[in-house]
Amino acid sequence: MAGINENYLKLQGSYLFAEVKKRRIRYMEQNPDARLISLGIGDVTRPLPAASIAAMHLALDEMADEKTFKGYAPDGYGYSFLINKIIEFDYNARGVSLDEDEVFISDGAKSDTANFQEIFETGCRVAMTDPVYPVYIDSNVMAGRTGSYNDGGYSGVTYLPCTAENGFTPELPEGKVDLIYLCFPNNPTGMTLSKKELEKWVDYARKNKAVILFDSAYKAYISEPDVVHSIYEIEGAKECAVEFRSYSKTAGFTGVRCSYAVVPKGVMGLTAAGKSVSLNDLWFRRQTTKYNGTSYIIHCGAAAIYTDEGRRQVREMVGYYMENASIILQGLKDIGIKTFGGVNAPYIWLKTPNDIDSWTFFDKLLNEANIVGTPGSGFGPSGRGYFRLTAFGKKENTIEAVKRLKNLSLKP
Amino acid sequence: MAGINENYLKLQGSYLFAEVKKRRIRYMEQNPDARLISLGIGDVTRPLPAASIAAMHLALDEMADEKTFKGYAPDGYGYSFLINKIIEFDYNARGVSLDEDEVFISDGAKSDTANFQEIFETGCRVAMTDPVYPVYIDSNVMAGRTGSYNDGGYSGVTYLPCTAENGFTPELPEGKVDLIYLCFPNNPTGMTLSKKELEKWVDYARKNKAVILFDSAYKAYISEPDVVHSIYEIEGAKECAVEFRSYSKTAGFTGVRCSYAVVPKGVMGLTAAGKSVSLNDLWFRRQTTKYNGTSYIIHCGAAAIYTDEGRRQVREMVGYYMENASIILQGLKDIGIKTFGGVNAPYIWLKTPNDIDSWTFFDKLLNEANIVGTPGSGFGPSGRGYFRLTAFGKKENTIEAVKRLKNLSLKP
Repeated sequence: MAGINENYLKLQGSYLFAEVKKRRIRYMEQNPDARLISLGIGDVTRPLPAASIAAMHLALDEMADEKTFKGYAPDGYGYSFLINKIIEFDYNARGVSLDEDEVFISDGAKSDTANFQEIFETGCRVAMTDPVYPVYIDSNVMAGRTGSYNDGGYSGVTYLPCTAENGFTPELPEGKVDLIYLCFPNNPTGMTLSKKELEKWVDYARKNKAVILFDSAYKAYISEPDVVHSIYEIEGAKECAVEFRSYSKTAGFTGVRCSYAVVPKGVMGLTAAGKSVSLNDLWFRRQTTKYNGTSYIIHCGAAAIYTDEGRRQVREMVGYYMENASIILQGLKDIGIKTFGGVNAPYIWLKTPNDIDSWTFFDKLLNEANIVGTPGSGFGPSGRGYFRLTAFGKKENTIEAVKRLKNLSLKP
Repeated sequence: MAGINENYLKLQGSYLFAEVKKRRIRYMEQNPDARLISLGIGDVTRPLPAASIAAMHLALDEMADEKTFKGYAPDGYGYSFLINKIIEFDYNARGVSLDEDEVFISDGAKSDTANFQEIFETGCRVAMTDPVYPVYIDSNVMAGRTGSYNDGGYSGVTYLPCTAENGFTPELPEGKVDLIYLCFPNNPTGMTLSKKELEKWVDYARKNKAVILFDSAYKAYISEPDVVHSIYEIEGAKECAVEFRSYSKTAGFTGVRCSYAVVPKGVMGLTAAGKSVSLNDLWFRRQTTKYNGTSYIIHCGAAAIYTDEGRRQVREMVGYYMENASIILQGLKDIGIKTFGGVNAPYIWLKTPNDIDSWTFFDKLLNEANIVGTPGSGFGPSGRGYFRLTAFGKKENTIEAVKRLKNLSLKP
């Protein structure tokens, strides 16, 4: 008898974004003429940077010629030509040095952040900021690391509430935890952590031999000068932190698929007998065994964003979306809705008017303004009564959405 | 303290192909003028089909225009335009019907065959043919499903020996097993299973509520008429079997990355309490949570191989490699080496001369003929004393390799 992994049965309903999509499709079936505007799932709308397009056309020409054809990518890490650009532009430029074999190219930060927990024992105590990107929690549920679900949360997870009350700055856990998921600039709140606050976490991790899984997928959106781009800007982080980066939001690659994970060789895990094992070795083994590398064509598209032209095009794209963020922030302010984020991140986190339930607000926006957003409660217990809008729409749609919001009746 | 997944420590040395690569690189460093010919790792050498190249250029043009830009692929499954081609050409044409939501597009059959075990409980008893593609075994080791390694095998795995003695036809296990990995045409032996033999396995699985994980990555290489292309050609298989297919060997996509998994809705797993759960639902949940879809560009490249032009180009490519297979088979026959496979698969499995150890033969071929192959023992205990050559080289190199083989001293 093929027994199933019963941890899957502890998962709560559908994956958040699948549920959002389902409700949107149902609404469209019932109202085929409605002109919906999606400020929901974090999908981009701008075309790819011209530099990436050109580089991928050239890569295709190479793949069409037996003299330049490329088969499997180099084992585990990916092509050096991309890794070296990452090290130069994303790290050296911020004062961080990395070796080539500390960077692993992959098909997405979703895959990486979901898969990375595999190399740890199932008994590890997991902490994560709350609200949180559902992938961190769900992948740990599937692995049997969370206990059961009660009243909005899993019994075995240490939630680190981030709410308006604490300025979205999580407090260190009281007890010991082993794995800590941090994402800054944050999805979904759009908020950042100061360097001083992040230092506390690195300190905690070093003292407790914990590992920080740091997701900085949105670093390209940082506009303020004193915000940390990489956790390795904090002294000692190369002993305790892994970092995940994605081209999805940096270069509009949601439909292209490319990202990378940085696993410094000094980050160690421990066996039950107390022996240190390099996480870099374990992740290399995981990737060489269960992944067969990222497309050569896509490597070329990603490398092109580090050219002068590519960097300019990425800046323009980010600027476009951040103008949307300003439009949304101003619009919400005008109608008296309390907002957070949207300055160093493409996400606007808002307090639902009159503290109505997040999914009720979702249905209200969908039905009365034909706007699709994401209910805060889908991101965890501390997201209750909040709601996420994204800046990834087209500018004209964003303007139209704000106009509709202004006509919304917010009376209780 | 971040405890590691100690199952990783049970893994034997490096991943087989990484070890082969390491020895090759070491030899090249010591002998920089040597002209190595690789008939080792199953990587292809022919350029991509022109139809795929053209389709991907067009896809890039779409991605460069905001009107036709594509973000995230549809949740879990992938784009219908490819799924429908798969159903029409790969299944309907063989008398098999499938629904659109039974096909999941992904980045590789390596990922799929490695990840699929996640949806089963760790207590499942796993059976697999031996020798075997290392990914099946290593992914189960990592999941803690295999016990420890002793004398060439894992104590908790049911090995199904396939050797010259039994004509490479595995016998049904004596006890009950829950998950059965079968790959036909087989990697590494290049051998197939008759329809009658495969029926026995489907029967066994249905009687024992076991699940067959059927890898048919090499179906494009089948040249004989009575060989099954898909396990669903066997009656009842849609109740007990999942099938994995790859474009890597069909269309030369090793460096492009695309594949699909077929999970019929009638294939069930069981909870400890005996409740049936659809594997299709579980795999959908797994993929929507831990994978973010396959590149749109690559979807287009894969769909193009089903056009008239694409199908002709694929046939030509397969023909090219199978001519290599004939050249290798004839060459080995001429020097009195016993061979298997190479007729319905791009792999030639040979008995090492004088029964020498597989890695010794690897080093002998590398040192004396500058040919890189793959040691049979790396594929499992029943691979000892065997060796794998692949037909994926360039024709002129394959001819040269055979010439060198003929000069090899095979005296004990």
